[in-house]
Amino acid sequence: MLRPTRMHALAIKSDLEIMRQQMVVVDDDESYAMKGGEGPHSYAKNSIIQKGLIDGSKRLIHEAISQSFDPKEHVHGNDEPSKPICIADLGCSTGPNTFFAMQTITEAIQQQFQSHGLASQIPDIQVLFNDQVSNDFNTLFKNLPQQRIYYATAVPGSFCGRLFPKQTLHLVHSSAALCWLSKLPNEITDSDSSACNKGRIHYTDAPKEVADAYATQYSKDMGNFLHARAQELVENGLMLLQFPVSNVLLDSDVDPAKVFELIGTCLVDMAKVGVISEEKVDSFNVPLIYPSVKAVKEIFRGCDECFSIEWMEILEFKNMVSLPTVQIFVSWFRAALQGMIEKHFGAEIVDELFERFAEKVKEFPDIMDTDKLKLDVLFVLLRRKNKARP
Amino acid sequence: MLRPTRMHALAIKSDLEIMRQQMVVVDDDESYAMKGGEGPHSYAKNSIIQKGLIDGSKRLIHEAISQSFDPKEHVHGNDEPSKPICIADLGCSTGPNTFFAMQTITEAIQQQFQSHGLASQIPDIQVLFNDQVSNDFNTLFKNLPQQRIYYATAVPGSFCGRLFPKQTLHLVHSSAALCWLSKLPNEITDSDSSACNKGRIHYTDAPKEVADAYATQYSKDMGNFLHARAQELVENGLMLLQFPVSNVLLDSDVDPAKVFELIGTCLVDMAKVGVISEEKVDSFNVPLIYPSVKAVKEIFRGCDECFSIEWMEILEFKNMVSLPTVQIFVSWFRAALQGMIEKHFGAEIVDELFERFAEKVKEFPDIMDTDKLKLDVLFVLLRRKNKARP
Repeated sequence: MLRPTRMHALAIKSDLEIMRQQMVVVDDDESYAMKGGEGPHSYAKNSIIQKGLIDGSKRLIHEAISQSFDPKEHVHGNDEPSKPICIADLGCSTGPNTFFAMQTITEAIQQQFQSHGLASQIPDIQVLFNDQVSNDFNTLFKNLPQQRIYYATAVPGSFCGRLFPKQTLHLVHSSAALCWLSKLPNEITDSDSSACNKGRIHYTDAPKEVADAYATQYSKDMGNFLHARAQELVENGLMLLQFPVSNVLLDSDVDPAKVFELIGTCLVDMAKVGVISEEKVDSFNVPLIYPSVKAVKEIFRGCDECFSIEWMEILEFKNMVSLPTVQIFVSWFRAALQGMIEKHFGAEIVDELFERFAEKVKEFPDIMDTDKLKLDVLFVLLRRKNKARP
Repeated sequence: MLRPTRMHALAIKSDLEIMRQQMVVVDDDESYAMKGGEGPHSYAKNSIIQKGLIDGSKRLIHEAISQSFDPKEHVHGNDEPSKPICIADLGCSTGPNTFFAMQTITEAIQQQFQSHGLASQIPDIQVLFNDQVSNDFNTLFKNLPQQRIYYATAVPGSFCGRLFPKQTLHLVHSSAALCWLSKLPNEITDSDSSACNKGRIHYTDAPKEVADAYATQYSKDMGNFLHARAQELVENGLMLLQFPVSNVLLDSDVDPAKVFELIGTCLVDMAKVGVISEEKVDSFNVPLIYPSVKAVKEIFRGCDECFSIEWMEILEFKNMVSLPTVQIFVSWFRAALQGMIEKHFGAEIVDELFERFAEKVKEFPDIMDTDKLKLDVLFVLLRRKNKARP
């Protein structure tokens, strides 16, 4: 073995520098996930809204794949080994919605091969289920459909960063997940900031600075999301996104985020009677946003070197979800928020909080009326352009 | 849309037939996994033997990769997108051993690129952590090294079947996992069979028919393992396997499987005092085998159309693991067996069983003496040949 010279040592140092740059550095402090397991308050048992979104766009998914997914790109000569079709579901949670979505997509892909006379040449399909590190992947795996046409894989981490090797994904799906911020904007809990959000847990009816801070974080998150996917998708790769958007039409409509105002008042009431501290309420905020379609379009426009918009359609939320009972309505929000409430306030307050919330919902039943909700669902199909990588 | 004719309907039927054949059918009834979580009895806290195996073969892994992994195969021209290097760890359990093994392998791969002057061209590396569906993947994800040079992915299922798409793996690793059978041979619990294993929980000191049934199942499992990997590995892909083998030298040595005889007598004692039923003991058997090197070589020879043996080395177990205390020794077996004992007898017997086992170990301390154990570790490097697929 050669003794390293100074030059050699320098070369090694610069190699190490290169390797350090290749490191996958994961910061998951802000990780929160839907309620795991299969118990009465679990996401698995309380995600009928999200199921409604997938049901409502099933036809669109079929049409989008039929128009935009070219099976011939995936069929090679006899000499070349067949490469798998890789599909990622970002923000998949624990099931069963993700299984339903993946069945819809894989069936649509099969039909594409079939309609092109290529049924015998369908490559292996690999589905990559992604959610935050704290997601209950054990429950996801336990309930994987016994008969499925894909190889199942789980990938932990925030979808605002890189999750997959370069140019390995053919189709990205994400349903009802892109409304969650990766983190709360710092200024929201900074008492010296004009965007400090005391006595509330969301931007609804908050000072404009609070809503602006949410919007800025959202724009940053979506930028990171698109930047990461631009690297991970193959050229011509597709991205099928569905997420709730606000739709301000009439003043008599109910702001979709009003529900967090209601939960916030429950927490304030609990602080008043000394169950929790006021400071804890002031520092708690729900990292969820219902952006306007205009804001979303602007963000996509900022990424038009990498992505072309192939399809954009607004679906009416009221057509996707039917009127719930108070109990079902409360359970939806409990499944989504329980994890972060436990982390912030402790597990012991959860039952009381959602009992109080149920009482408030009975008092203001309009909050459940999907007909009056200023909420739509945006369905978007993006395609990775054949251009230089970011 | 065309109305389907009879011919068309037949064509669709035959397509569906083809698609059905492409289905991934998973039967995981026999799934058992190491004890999850991070508690005092968890695998994560009680897997120092298995860590010893990886430690002991770290130098061999580096040498094997240095000799057999060609970085030039992974570097493409500027036009072609770089493809990730995919590494699977089969039977990974919950960590930390798998993280240590993957760090060793990925560092060795980096060094290969570096020593060929290709440090700036290392492709993305993807590690696929595999274990049975009931493995605690949540704990695995939670403890993933924060700074790592690979994208992490989990794949659930038995490694005796297909787990990954065709020709997608570059390196397969498996440490201390290939000693577990995929299932117990049926005849072991069939009271009409001469291989019925009443009053024991393993093949040690059992009639020859019992040991033969274990050996037949092992041979079948290893055949399935190699057959599946032959399809999943790329041409020239490597497989690094380490697993315990028996090494019958002197009669004064301790049979490595004697420990199960000892645990078996504890269960028989518990049946005698009525804590569990005799039938439950008769139907319980540990699906673990320490094959002879000769038996393993014969199995590999049966797969020599697909794999060439690049390296085979016997490592002395006693050099890899130091003499444990009774408590540590008992904890090893508890972490490995607790899951299947709970499934078979119920969780309430576990504490008593391992207290009784600790007493027996104190009575027969030779069982812990690694110097006297008839146990070695086989280190094997196989290469996927450039031949027709099975």
